[in-house]
Amino acid sequence: MDKKGMLIVISGFSGVGKGTVMQLVFDSIPNLQFSISCTSRKPRAGEENGVNYFFITEEEFEEKIKNDEFIEYTKTFTNYYGTLKSEIDGPLSRGVDVLLELNVVGARRIKELYPDCVTIFITPPSLDVLKARLIGRGTETKDSLKRRLAEIEKEGKDIENYDYAVTNNVARTCADAVVHIIESEHLKVSRQNLKNLFVSEE
Amino acid sequence: MDKKGMLIVISGFSGVGKGTVMQLVFDSIPNLQFSISCTSRKPRAGEENGVNYFFITEEEFEEKIKNDEFIEYTKTFTNYYGTLKSEIDGPLSRGVDVLLELNVVGARRIKELYPDCVTIFITPPSLDVLKARLIGRGTETKDSLKRRLAEIEKEGKDIENYDYAVTNNVARTCADAVVHIIESEHLKVSRQNLKNLFVSEE
Repeated sequence: MDKKGMLIVISGFSGVGKGTVMQLVFDSIPNLQFSISCTSRKPRAGEENGVNYFFITEEEFEEKIKNDEFIEYTKTFTNYYGTLKSEIDGPLSRGVDVLLELNVVGARRIKELYPDCVTIFITPPSLDVLKARLIGRGTETKDSLKRRLAEIEKEGKDIENYDYAVTNNVARTCADAVVHIIESEHLKVSRQNLKNLFVSEE
Repeated sequence: MDKKGMLIVISGFSGVGKGTVMQLVFDSIPNLQFSISCTSRKPRAGEENGVNYFFITEEEFEEKIKNDEFIEYTKTFTNYYGTLKSEIDGPLSRGVDVLLELNVVGARRIKELYPDCVTIFITPPSLDVLKARLIGRGTETKDSLKRRLAEIEKEGKDIENYDYAVTNNVARTCADAVVHIIESEHLKVSRQNLKNLFVSEE
């Protein structure tokens, strides 16, 4: 039987609560592996190297690009973000499911490279709720909030390229929905090897 | 927002325990409607008209064929089985999910007519378990058991045409998997209307 792992991509607007949801998903599926991305940006408060990201310098990042170590990478305003091949292909070939958190550009590239990956977009209950959450975080200036809302508008159009969209109203409910999506995807006939399973040997 | 109901088709070998699983699914999703099929066969012990099937005569069945009342129908060895249009299209257009139990031939026809229906095949843990269950029921003669096993071999090849295959080891676990498939399918982007949901009005 084909025991290749499944690749799951999670995206969602800034402030939607992806982190909490993903933590609950990992608690529910102990075998699920989080693929740690590389970035050249500085760690935020509470972020740890090798947990949230591999934090490396811009020079190190460019070295890895040169060595063809990335499946995909992007450069935002000032920072590199990338997915290492070693973080994906190793676990998958050992039959381990891998979860990746990516923005819409990264998700699109991964879908091209791994067409049978499962892409899930986490949405807020409404745009107003999201705005309130972003303002409530207290980390946004008027300008950065404006830029985030423009990003949301742009990314929102990309939801149509995802397989699933799940609303994060209550984190536990949202996480359960994600867990059930992953479990249900494993039950797809196209992901199982059922051929001749019920042919009598007599 | 598009509020059309979803059509779910359940199939499975004779003796696999579809009835118990479906009852648990209906208990979990109160709004799910069971589409009652028509048949010209006689009711078995415990079966009720308008609950398990609409039991009608061969003549009445042929009258309904003439009046184009069926979405699909088949004739087995001696009996007609058919799905009434009124049992499907009415609820779907009111936004109600409909569950149909069909054999592999019926399921294939429904998939052609309703390409976005969800087809689920309930499998036994193994062929040996299924054989033991069939013998345990005590309703099979040696000949009918042989015929059933031939049917199983034939139907088994059709599993590949289904969207999902779920093993019925423990009925409750199997039913939960079916419920989660239905819930997850509703979260597919292709079944939601998310366009411009996150476009700021300012």
